This record gives sequence, structure tokens and C-alpha cells, in this order.
Amino acid sequence: MLIGFGLIGAGRIGQLHADNIVANPRAKLVTVSDAFAEPAEALAAKTGAEVSSVEEMLRRDDVQAVFVASSTDTHADFIEAGARAGKAVFCEKPVDMDAERIRSCLKVVEEFGQPLMIGFNRRFDPNFAALQRRLSEGEIGEVEIVTIQSRDPSPPPVSYIERSGGLFRDMMIHDLDMARFLLGEEPVSIYATGSALVDPAIGEAGDVDTAIAVLKTASGKVCQISNSRRATYGYDQRIEVHGSKGMLRAGNIHETTVEVATSAGFRADPVQHFFLERYMNAYRDELNAFIDVVEKGVVPAPNGYDGLMAQALADAATESLKTGVPVHL
Amino acid sequence: MLIGFGLIGAGRIGQLHADNIVANPRAKLVTVSDAFAEPAEALAAKTGAEVSSVEEMLRRDDVQAVFVASSTDTHADFIEAGARAGKAVFCEKPVDMDAERIRSCLKVVEEFGQPLMIGFNRRFDPNFAALQRRLSEGEIGEVEIVTIQSRDPSPPPVSYIERSGGLFRDMMIHDLDMARFLLGEEPVSIYATGSALVDPAIGEAGDVDTAIAVLKTASGKVCQISNSRRATYGYDQRIEVHGSKGMLRAGNIHETTVEVATSAGFRADPVQHFFLERYMNAYRDELNAFIDVVEKGVVPAPNGYDGLMAQALADAATESLKTGVPVHL
Amino acid sequence: MLIGFGLIGAGRIGQLHADNIVANPRAKLVTVSDAFAEPAEALAAKTGAEVSSVEEMLRRDDVQAVFVASSTDTHADFIEAGARAGKAVFCEKPVDMDAERIRSCLKVVEEFGQPLMIGFNRRFDPNFAALQRRLSEGEIGEVEIVTIQSRDPSPPPVSYIERSGGLFRDMMIHDLDMARFLLGEEPVSIYATGSALVDPAIGEAGDVDTAIAVLKTASGKVCQISNSRRATYGYDQRIEVHGSKGMLRAGNIHETTVEVATSAGFRADPVQHFFLERYMNAYRDELNAFIDVVEKGVVPAPNGYDGLMAQALADAATESLKTGVPVHL
Amino acid sequence: MLIGFGLIGAGRIGQLHADNIVANPRAKLVTVSDAFAEPAEALAAKTGAEVSSVEEMLRRDDVQAVFVASSTDTHADFIEAGARAGKAVFCEKPVDMDAERIRSCLKVVEEFGQPLMIGFNRRFDPNFAALQRRLSEGEIGEVEIVTIQSRDPSPPPVSYIERSGGLFRDMMIHDLDMARFLLGEEPVSIYATGSALVDPAIGEAGDVDTAIAVLKTASGKVCQISNSRRATYGYDQRIEVHGSKGMLRAGNIHETTVEVATSAGFRADPVQHFFLERYMNAYRDELNAFIDVVEKGVVPAPNGYDGLMAQALADAATESLKTGVPVHL
Repeated sequence: MLIGFGLIGAGRIGQLHADNIVANPRAKLVTVSDAFAEPAEALAAKTGAEVSSVEEMLRRDDVQAVFVASSTDTHADFIEAGARAGKAVFCEKPVDMDAERIRSCLKVVEEFGQPLMIGFNRRFDPNFAALQRRLSEGEIGEVEIVTIQSRDPSPPPVSYIERSGGLFRDMMIHDLDMARFLLGEEPVSIYATGSALVDPAIGEAGDVDTAIAVLKTASGKVCQISNSRRATYGYDQRIEVHGSKGMLRAGNIHETTVEVATSAGFRADPVQHFFLERYMNAYRDELNAFIDVVEKGVVPAPNGYDGLMAQALADAATESLKTGVPVHL
Repeated sequence: MLIGFGLIGAGRIGQLHADNIVANPRAKLVTVSDAFAEPAEALAAKTGAEVSSVEEMLRRDDVQAVFVASSTDTHADFIEAGARAGKAVFCEKPVDMDAERIRSCLKVVEEFGQPLMIGFNRRFDPNFAALQRRLSEGEIGEVEIVTIQSRDPSPPPVSYIERSGGLFRDMMIHDLDMARFLLGEEPVSIYATGSALVDPAIGEAGDVDTAIAVLKTASGKVCQISNSRRATYGYDQRIEVHGSKGMLRAGNIHETTVEVATSAGFRADPVQHFFLERYMNAYRDELNAFIDVVEKGVVPAPNGYDGLMAQALADAATESLKTGVPVHL
Repeated sequence: MLIGFGLIGAGRIGQLHADNIVANPRAKLVTVSDAFAEPAEALAAKTGAEVSSVEEMLRRDDVQAVFVASSTDTHADFIEAGARAGKAVFCEKPVDMDAERIRSCLKVVEEFGQPLMIGFNRRFDPNFAALQRRLSEGEIGEVEIVTIQSRDPSPPPVSYIERSGGLFRDMMIHDLDMARFLLGEEPVSIYATGSALVDPAIGEAGDVDTAIAVLKTASGKVCQISNSRRATYGYDQRIEVHGSKGMLRAGNIHETTVEVATSAGFRADPVQHFFLERYMNAYRDELNAFIDVVEKGVVPAPNGYDGLMAQALADAATESLKTGVPVHL
Repeated sequence: MLIGFGLIGAGRIGQLHADNIVANPRAKLVTVSDAFAEPAEALAAKTGAEVSSVEEMLRRDDVQAVFVASSTDTHADFIEAGARAGKAVFCEKPVDMDAERIRSCLKVVEEFGQPLMIGFNRRFDPNFAALQRRLSEGEIGEVEIVTIQSRDPSPPPVSYIERSGGLFRDMMIHDLDMARFLLGEEPVSIYATGSALVDPAIGEAGDVDTAIAVLKTASGKVCQISNSRRATYGYDQRIEVHGSKGMLRAGNIHETTVEVATSAGFRADPVQHFFLERYMNAYRDELNAFIDVVEKGVVPAPNGYDGLMAQALADAATESLKTGVPVHL
């Protein structure tokens, strides 16, 4: 039997998930809800789903799973509502900008015993997922140094920056989750620094656009993360892990495999620019993992606790940037 | 308005095209026909199309385009029937194993003035297509040497080999079409040689599994093609063009971007093994090109003449292998 | 006329410099001095130079340039003696382990007006030198993030570690100099952390073998350095600079260009293991730069001030490791 | 005891070998001879060797090995003279432009029982040598297809072309020797074709500048070679061997490891342009191999027979180009 999905949020990311649900042979998109009628109706028309309110959605017996892709400030409420209604919930990151609110939300989820999975999509990128799997199989021995380079093609508008919670909560949070995923241990300290080098207006808005963080675990493993809001050559997403027996790394995909050689040298294409293109397979595999949770009772990963920890690390990095000293967790 | 498609042939390649037609926002799969009822019905059930005979399909007004993916010996007949019925026709390669039959078929197509496009899918691989476009824009000046390496992961069963028309008509024909695509001139001579090194049974069946061909055009451009029926490291499909101002090349895609470094060196993944995975985007773009033909009156490429010429080159290569001397065209 | 060289120190690194002096068409090795008679005599016999005391060497008119490759604790004294004797001096890094001693030494050098060049050889690696030149020419706009990965193939014996001044002064000092070279601005803060993950005995000796440092300049440029005393796949020395208009990077050289592809994937050789092999060309070009100083009056770079600043950064990193907070310079 | 060398020929390639002999710890350059006094005296002055006639050289007891680097038309005579005088002989390729003259020369060498080694330097390129060694160790099973790409940076003057014996004898002969080295079997047929695409004056001189050859052995292994007299991006020298268990390849070395990434893509340096730079290590290792022949009685490889076979293949390729059909050997 197909898993019936209710989708909350019909914006760009909601549409992406809707396409994946429709294409998935184990899933069916039953209803779509959005704060605005128009995008919900357009998405329903395209996919054959119904439009409904969230309340109606949660009452339906043919909806087993709720996909939360609405605005961040509604996430925790919808997660709780979904859990109370006995639905499995998938929620885009972050659960909330406030770690306390996340904690109270997770308590509700726990109380109602429903599975919750959080959308740290990069864990499902086939390259990063393969790297982590090989790491966990011991291919390079013990992890010693994790290096994460993450650079967006271009900065968002300052109006977005102002509502974003800052680079560490908006952008680096993905890398902080990846750091936990790869280190296999909780970080016990984080030092962060940064500058506004890409756009002075970002600095005037109180944020940075260029940042470095250093994490350390209790056993001494270290992780360095660097972020930039600009990369002229594409969406730059690279991971390298140095271990006791070797190194594993995973990188970017060029737009094509074409290379030209002239007297100016050998030139390859830029790397893929658009995050929806780069992480297309990640979103598809993420959905499959969630369907395994709903269908087979697999323990969700990343779960609400992962969402909480990433947010706590982002908060700590933000504090370290302000105070100039490492924060101990 | 959506272009209505009738699909003839519901086997593996027909199913692939059906999926692409369904996913294409400009196309609609109206009817499916197959010599056997079961696969046609299964495909119709999955896609929402009807099952019909070819005769019914060709009578329908809501079918503007016919997609021929049936067995090779039926291609020419269905092309003719489609053209007579006033339909645009897309046909999987080859039109026919006999160049004379291709010629008579093309005459019918010409008489009824309908567009015909032939499924040399590799021209639509985004990497090869980008290479050819940049070549035609003069990025490396005049073409001088075209090098095509094409190796299958593993040989087909001998029973297939026996019906295949031989390596040149079954496998190298793709590379011969690519050679014409890249040389930008017709070859005037071809020399081919080969051996059965992969599987002695292939030699016993009168065929080769390892082959090299050398083509030359009137202006002196040269092309070398090498084929093997086996490649342990994936489906190996590479093109390199040496020109007066430089070199352009396009290659394979590794299964992931993960690389491991140990005392044994640096190891990357094998390249993609399966032709449906490697050429997934090629099939999608090929369909779009055909829809442009139907919808906008774009001149089809590759067309029936390209199908004829590739077959003629494959015949000539087969003759060269037998006689031991180059064949002049 | 050939520049006459006096070489102080006939150990491994002195022998390397002697070979380069002999092979250099602008230089002549006149005398060799060493605390022990045997290595000096062996080197003299091999190269045709004389053996002399440092005092005799400095009195000779046919010695214009002194090359100091003796033990670290003698560097500052020999630099001063050379400068007093009116010789141009090249000294292996570091000038001294004590920044105060470096300062007093540089005062003597300044007083006698003789050129002093310091052996930060990596600046002369053809790859890193080309990267820095292209950076300074503005090829990628303004520098924003410098990333330096530096990993030795295997750790030195603990007896060496104990006398080394610690990882930051012994190993990372090269990367700290490279950071200054590439940032084009002085760092104003440095944060360092590390662990003993490679060999517990290194931790027991009070040092680390795995370390990360983060530097920041007044204008907000950042640099991250990571070090490990172990790399199974060779001597790993990579630089990447992210700028406002793009990225420049330079990497390792594999032992050969051979690559093998099998069902296990594509495997390239390890990278060169031995620092004398990896930096062979750097030592040669470094000598040429020093000969330009002596012969043409080119301003030496890196000079004594560079030696002082690298040592000051290494001291600050060592302090940061101990205190757990960044050090402001 | 050092092996005493007499060098015949003080031109560019003679100077290179002289430098290598001087730098080699097992060799001593005793005398230099040249048809012209000036280059011989200049080389002697630089290296400390004496100038002598060939007759004097061959009479000296302190000369055990003769290095022939004179003009091609003198090779066979000097080889014979050296052998008669009881010297081990190293001769630059080719022994002679006439296969019959080579045969008579080899008879004299055989009669006097002296070792003869021929300067097919590419066999000693560390990359190609490693590839061949791994091939012979069975790393990729049985050889099936050898692909050799060889392109010079720019064509020689037509005056040189006219005296060269044509592309196959002047340029492809290196690749033909490499084909034998890698195939591990003698070719039984060769087909060659070509054009003058780089410079029409080369065509007017009766030669080609763009060529392809296909070789086949008795057991069915095949080899394709392509040559061009022009490559804008450097001296292009690549080998790829496809075997029953995988593929081995070896390629070019870029001028530096620096790579720049911008919105135009990722650009690496051209590959090394100059053959003396590209094959610097090959010449050094070739000399060591010859010293092993003289000092330890190692059987010389490549030897006179290899010189004869490469010349015979070059003759056959030239004939195939003229007749348009394969030549059987």
C-alpha cells in the first residue's frame, strides 16, 4: 500500500518534495496545504492532490505522513500537531531558531511516540553518504581531521540575511550537522570567526559572509569548516576526512565532463551552481529514507535530537563570533 | 497543446521512452502497441495510456507523433506506415540492417513529407552535445583527429551476437554516427580490423569483440575508433577531438565523487556501468529535440539520411574486416 | 664572476645546498665548515671545496656569501658573524627559537648593512610560487580565505619532538610563513588547537601531532591551517586561496602519472613522500633567488623580519593551544 | 671504478648526455669527439673531459663505453668501429635509415661480441617504464588494445622534414618501438594513413603531419597510434593499455599543479612543452641502464634488434601510407 502524504508548504522546496513524492513508487501525495491559496491550488492541480487545511489533513486516515515545508516559524507547531494526530513527520530544517522551543517540541513528539525526521538533506547526497558509510566501516581507521568547505554561488539579499539568524544558523548549520555526522562524536568546543568581505551591507546588517569554525571532540578529533557566501565557479561543497589510515574526500560535480586544452591550459566546466541540481539525488534519497521510517519502522536519522544539536552548535558559533573566544558545550 | 504520442514497442527501451514522454511537460502518451499483449498492458496501466493496435494508433487524430521502439526488423515498415498516416516518426536505430531497405523506406518518408528522426541517442548526451557545439563554434579551430573509445562493461550472450549483424553494425554504429557528427564531413574511406579476445565463442560465431576502425575524409581529417565488448571499470565512453587550435574531450562519470587515499595510492570509483544510467539525460534531451521537430517544425537531426550513412559505414567496416583492406565510399 | 660560497653545516640539508651550489652556473662552493671534521671533509672531497673553520671562511675574500645550515642554536651567532664580516648571509629557518634573540640578531644585521635571507623554502616551490605570483597579480581579486593543508608522511621520533619547540614552532612555522606570504597582510589574531592522535608518546612529551590554526588579519581576511604528523599517502602539501573573483589552488605531485582502472575503481599513485624530493626544485630556485640578492642587490625575501614574524606566530599559536583562547598580535 | 665514457657528438643531445654522465656517480666522461672543433672544445671545457678524434678515443684503455650522439648517417659506422675496438656502445636512434645497413651493422656487433644499446629514451620515462612493468606483472591481465597518442608542440622546419625520412621514420618510430614494448609480441601487420593538415608545405615536401597507424599481432592484440606535428597545449605523450582485467594509462605532466577556478571554469596549466624537460628523467635512467650493461653485464634493452624492428615498422608504415593498404610483416 502506498504511504499517503500531506504536504504543508507549497513554495519552492515544497514543490520539489511534491515532485519526488509523486515520482516515488511507494508514496502518494494526498493533500497539500499552504498559508496562501494560490500556490497550494497550483501544486494540487499539477500533482492530482487535494487542497486542504492542515487541520483537515491531520484528520484524514489516508494521510500517514506529514511533510512540513512551511516557513521556519511554523515548523515546531506543525511538528507537534502532526505528532498529536498520530502522523509520522518529516520537517525541513531547522525545527526552530530557538533551542528551547526545539526542546519543548521534541518533548511533545516523544510523548506521542511518533517518528520525526529532520531535513538535513546533505546527509543523503550520494557522494557524502558513501563517504560517511565508508568512514563508518573503518576504511581510513580513526577520524582525526574533518575539513568541510561550503560556499554558495552568491549571497542572498540583505533582507533575507536580516531574518536569517545569521550565517551560522542559516548556512553553516548544514556543515555543523555534517561535522557531527562525520566525527561520530559530539563536539565539546567550538571557535568561530568571520568577516563581511563579500558585501559590506551584510556587515552593516550585523552578519558575516565569510566564516571559519573549529570544532573539537572529547577524544581530540578536530573539524574545520569554512563558509563563503560567494563562489564564482559554482556551488562549492567539499568534504575531506583525514584518518589514521588514510583520507576520504568527496567533491563537486562539473556541469559537463568536457575539457578543452589550448595554449592557455586545460579548462573544465564550472561546478553545478544550483543547490536543487546539486542535491537533486539527495532530496530523492532523503524521501526514501523517510518512507522506510514510515513503512518499516526504521529509526529516523537525522532526527529531532540532531536538529537540536545542530541548532545548539550554530548558537555557540554565533556566540563565539561575538565574544571572540571558543564556546564549550 | 500537448503532443500526443503513440508508442510502438513496450520492451525495456520502450518503457524508458514512455517514462520520458510522461514526465515531459509538452508531451502526452496516448496509446501503446506491442506484439505481445502483456507488456503493452502493463505499460499502459502504469502510464495511463491506452493499448491499441498500430493500425488504430495511426488512425487517431490525437496522436501526432509515433515512437518506434519495436524489434529492428519492423522499423522500416512502421516508419513507412507512420509517414503514410501523416505522423511525425521517431525510430530507434537502425532503420534496417539492409541499406537498400533503408533507401526505399526513406523514399516513402520523403514522398509523404513527414519528419523522421533516428535514435542515435549519444548525440544528445549533454557532454558529447556540448563538445560538438563548441567544436562547431570553432573553439579549437579545424578538426584534425577524432578519437573515440567505446567499451561495453561486458559482452552480450553469443545468441545475441549471432543475430546482431556483427560488432560494427551492432556496437560501433553508434561511434560511426558520432564520427560523422564530429568530423563535419563525410568519410571517404574506412579501414577496420579486430579480434575475438574477450570470448572465443564470439570468434566462433564469426564476429569480433575487440575492434579498431580508421576513417578519413576528403579533406584529410582522420578518425580512430576503438571498441571492446568488455571494460572491468564501467561503461567506457570517451571522445577526444584534436584541432588546429587545441583539443576538446569528454568522458565518463564516476559512480560517486568519493576518492580514498592510502599507502596504496588514490582511488576513485568505477565509472557508471549501465547504459540507461549513463545516457539517461541523453534520452530525455533526445525526446525534447523530437518534440521541437513536431511542435516547431525544426529539421530533424539525426534524420533518416544519418541512419543510412551510419549503416553504410558499418557495412563498409564489416567488409574491411573481411577483406583486410580499406573500403572506399 | 662566480659568487663564492662558504657553507656552515655539512649535514643532510647542508649537503643538499652544496649540491645545488656546485650545479649552479653562477656559484662556486669555496669552503665548508662543520662542528665535526668527518662530514665536512667528505663533503669537501665530493665537491672540490676546502675545509675551513668558520673564522677562516669569514676572512676569505673569495667568499662573498655564507650559507648557514648548522644546528638551530648556532644560527643567530653565525648570522651575526657573517654580517660583521661583510658577507651576505642565507640562513636556514629558524633564526632562533627565541623571538628576543632574533630581534637582537636582526639589529646586528641591520647595523652592518648586509643582506640576510631566511630559508623558508616553500615560497620557492614552483607551484606555490606561481600561485602567489598570480594572486599578487589579482587573478582572483581580493584574498578572502586561505586554506593550507600540511601533513608529514610520518612522525619524527619523540626524542626529536622533545627538542623541537613543539609542532607549531617545528612544523607549522612553514605554514605560518606561507599564510603571511599569501594573505599579503599581517595576521592580528591566531587561534590554535590540537591533539595527540598519531602517537600518545607525543602527547606525553607535552606536544600535539594534529593541529588546526585560524588566523585573521585587520581587514578581515582569514586563514585556516591544518597539520598532521602522519599521512599514509605521501607528503601532503596543499594550498587553496579563495578570493573575490575565484579560487587558486596548488597541490601535490604523484609519484608517477600512471593510473589503473579495474572493477575496484581508478587508482593513481601516492604523492611524493620525501620532502627533499617534493621541494627539490624549491631549494634550487631559493638558491637562485639568494644569488640574485648577492649579485644584483635584489632585496632579500623572505628576510630576517619574515623569520621573526613566523616565529612570533608560532609562539602565539603555542600560547593559544595552552590557554585555549585566541592570541592577539 | 668509474666507467670511462667517450662521447661522439657534442650537439644538443650530446650535451645532454654529457651532463648526465658527469652527474652520474658511476661514470666519468673521458673524451669528447665531434666533426666540428668548437662544440667539442666547449663541451670538454665545461665538463673537464679531453677532446679527441674518434680513432684516439677508441684506442684508449680508460674508455670502456662509447656514446654515439652524432648525425644519423654516421651511427652505423661508429657502432661498428666501437664494437671492433672492444667497447660497449650506446647509440641514439636510429641505427640507420636503411634497414639493410642496420642488418649488416648488427652482424659486425654480433661478431665482436660487444653490447649495443639503442636510445629509445621513452622506454625509460619513469611513467611509461612503471606502466610497462605493471603490465608485464599481469596487473591488467592480457593486453588487448594499446593506444598511443603522441603530438609535438609544433612542426619542425620543412628543411628538416625533407631530410627526415618522413613522419613515420622520424617521429612515429618512437611510438612504434613503444608499441612493441607494450604489446609484448611482434606486430604482423600495419596500416597507416595521414594528411598534411598542420602545414601545407609539409604536404608539398611529400610528407604528412597528421597520421594514424593500426598494428596487429599474430594473437590478435591491436594497437592504434596517432601523431600530430602540433599541439597547442604542450608536448602530448600519452599511453593507454586496455587489458582483460582492466586499463593502465600514463600521461603528461602539467607545468605546475596550480589550478584556477572562476566563472569560466577550472583551468590547469598546459603540459610540459619541451622534450628535454619531459624526458629529463628518462635520459638519466637510460644512462643508468646502459651503465648496468657495461658494469654488470646486464643484457642491453632496447638493443640493436629493437632498433632494426622499429625501423622496419616505420618503413612498412611509410609503404602503407603510399599504397593505401596494410603491409604484412
